[in-house]
Amino acid sequence: MATLTVPQEVPSPTQDSETLRKAFKGWGTDEKAVIQVLGHRNATQRKIIRDTYQKLYNQSLIDSLDSELSGDFGRAVILWTYDPAERDARLVNKALKSKNKSLDKLKVVIEISCASSPHHLLAVRKCYCSLFECSIEEDIIVNAPPSVRKILVGLVSSFRFDGAVVDLDVADDEASKLQEAVKLKQLDQDIVMWILSTRNVFQLKATFESYHKKYGILLHEDIKDYSDDLLVSLVTIVIKCIISPERHFVEVIKAATDGWGTDEDALTRVIISRAEIDLIKVKKAYFDIHKTSLDKLVKDETSGDYGAFLIALLGQ
Amino acid sequence: MATLTVPQEVPSPTQDSETLRKAFKGWGTDEKAVIQVLGHRNATQRKIIRDTYQKLYNQSLIDSLDSELSGDFGRAVILWTYDPAERDARLVNKALKSKNKSLDKLKVVIEISCASSPHHLLAVRKCYCSLFECSIEEDIIVNAPPSVRKILVGLVSSFRFDGAVVDLDVADDEASKLQEAVKLKQLDQDIVMWILSTRNVFQLKATFESYHKKYGILLHEDIKDYSDDLLVSLVTIVIKCIISPERHFVEVIKAATDGWGTDEDALTRVIISRAEIDLIKVKKAYFDIHKTSLDKLVKDETSGDYGAFLIALLGQ
Repeated sequence: MATLTVPQEVPSPTQDSETLRKAFKGWGTDEKAVIQVLGHRNATQRKIIRDTYQKLYNQSLIDSLDSELSGDFGRAVILWTYDPAERDARLVNKALKSKNKSLDKLKVVIEISCASSPHHLLAVRKCYCSLFECSIEEDIIVNAPPSVRKILVGLVSSFRFDGAVVDLDVADDEASKLQEAVKLKQLDQDIVMWILSTRNVFQLKATFESYHKKYGILLHEDIKDYSDDLLVSLVTIVIKCIISPERHFVEVIKAATDGWGTDEDALTRVIISRAEIDLIKVKKAYFDIHKTSLDKLVKDETSGDYGAFLIALLGQ
Repeated sequence: MATLTVPQEVPSPTQDSETLRKAFKGWGTDEKAVIQVLGHRNATQRKIIRDTYQKLYNQSLIDSLDSELSGDFGRAVILWTYDPAERDARLVNKALKSKNKSLDKLKVVIEISCASSPHHLLAVRKCYCSLFECSIEEDIIVNAPPSVRKILVGLVSSFRFDGAVVDLDVADDEASKLQEAVKLKQLDQDIVMWILSTRNVFQLKATFESYHKKYGILLHEDIKDYSDDLLVSLVTIVIKCIISPERHFVEVIKAATDGWGTDEDALTRVIISRAEIDLIKVKKAYFDIHKTSLDKLVKDETSGDYGAFLIALLGQ
């Protein structure tokens, strides 16, 4: 389900490092060469290139990229070059430390908790501790708005069973518990947090289906008219990320590109974080919903090396 | 700090497997040979022996031990032979699924959450999911008494920063927050659970010291006369495991061996789970407190192969 394309014959990590070093030499940078190499290597290959580059030139590849590239292109290439767990740990840290703790910022915490594999989430938590000398949970408790601390701590701490084991009685029972919380307008109940953060994805889908069947309305529709409260919006994104990550990411892309201007950070985040996971599904969902291709949208909304890099990751 | 002794020249895994196979052959079992091999190999060596035995005889070593050994000895050798993460996942599962959810049973969940390394706790969670097709958290929510669910879920979900980073202002502030909860007799507040389950061990020790300094009483003494409520007892064990795991384990051993009879399960659990971590410290703490050696106690309280096995793990 990845869109990333890797050439059939991949140059050796030493050759790739040399190509990159050459691209950085002299006045200006050969951005095309950077895209040609890094835009067509998977996470394992990029890791070996990082290690080889460090050994050959006694300098970190990330530092070289940082001093050679700039703007949206630089940010995108650097994010892509990090190990995926480090990339996500840095994205979470940036979201939690930003002055503006809007839903748009906190969204990344939910995506990493609910639209990643449980093993990836653990790798992100480990990496976060190494980089920032504290746990993600500690930074959530200090930095996130009070109303959403509990659910966010629960979500990032989760280690869901990674298989399709579903108990329909449990789904039925937990749909009722969710309805009770919804009726009381108490989405911050422990039980809501526990259901959303500990159950496996297949079990949760069954619970949401049971909710729909029993109460004639989708859970995220049922909480919609509460108010535009942050907790409600956040729970809505949790539900969407569980039901269909690809549709959630289509919404993020749509919001990032609608109207005047483009939210490059959001567009970059989606394409980079999903290019090796399910970007084909995101592209398909985008086409199904908007009847035009995601590639065309990205071409229209971006330009220059930044656009070319995203298009490379989209598989063209 | 391990008591386990490994011979200077270790036989090959094949030789060890053959010795074990020979010990199982014919009528009866050569228990001494089992102790001689398994009682003197570390976790990595035991893993290789398990793999080699499986390859050589197309049978799991655990299954062989299970059919050859019995009683306390059999249970102890099997626990010791498991991979440490699998052993602890099984101990947690047994505690959560036992009919009697007393503090004595739930203690093991706290020990694994608060007296293990953060990386070991993650390994236990992964193993639990593989073995039981659900997360530890899900089993806590379904099986643990309501009053302690929140704190137990928080503790097992934690991934504390594994270093000595301490902020004394935070310690001072969180000591006040704990005091507020203690005054209100509300140990189930989210903030109490967050402090105990997300802060690193060094930070927590500073917080407990600050509490002592500011309020003239140790935190676990301050909650003592609440009642003998399960939550209070559980929080007390959390605090003890954070301040000094070895003293906590001395208390467990003392309780297991005091009066008539011996709680072999508890004694086995402590010796097996700490033999490769800090059993030397436990022995020292036992001597400091009780002015007699732990080895002597174990010799007095146990007998036969079971006693000989524990004594081997104690480093004699």
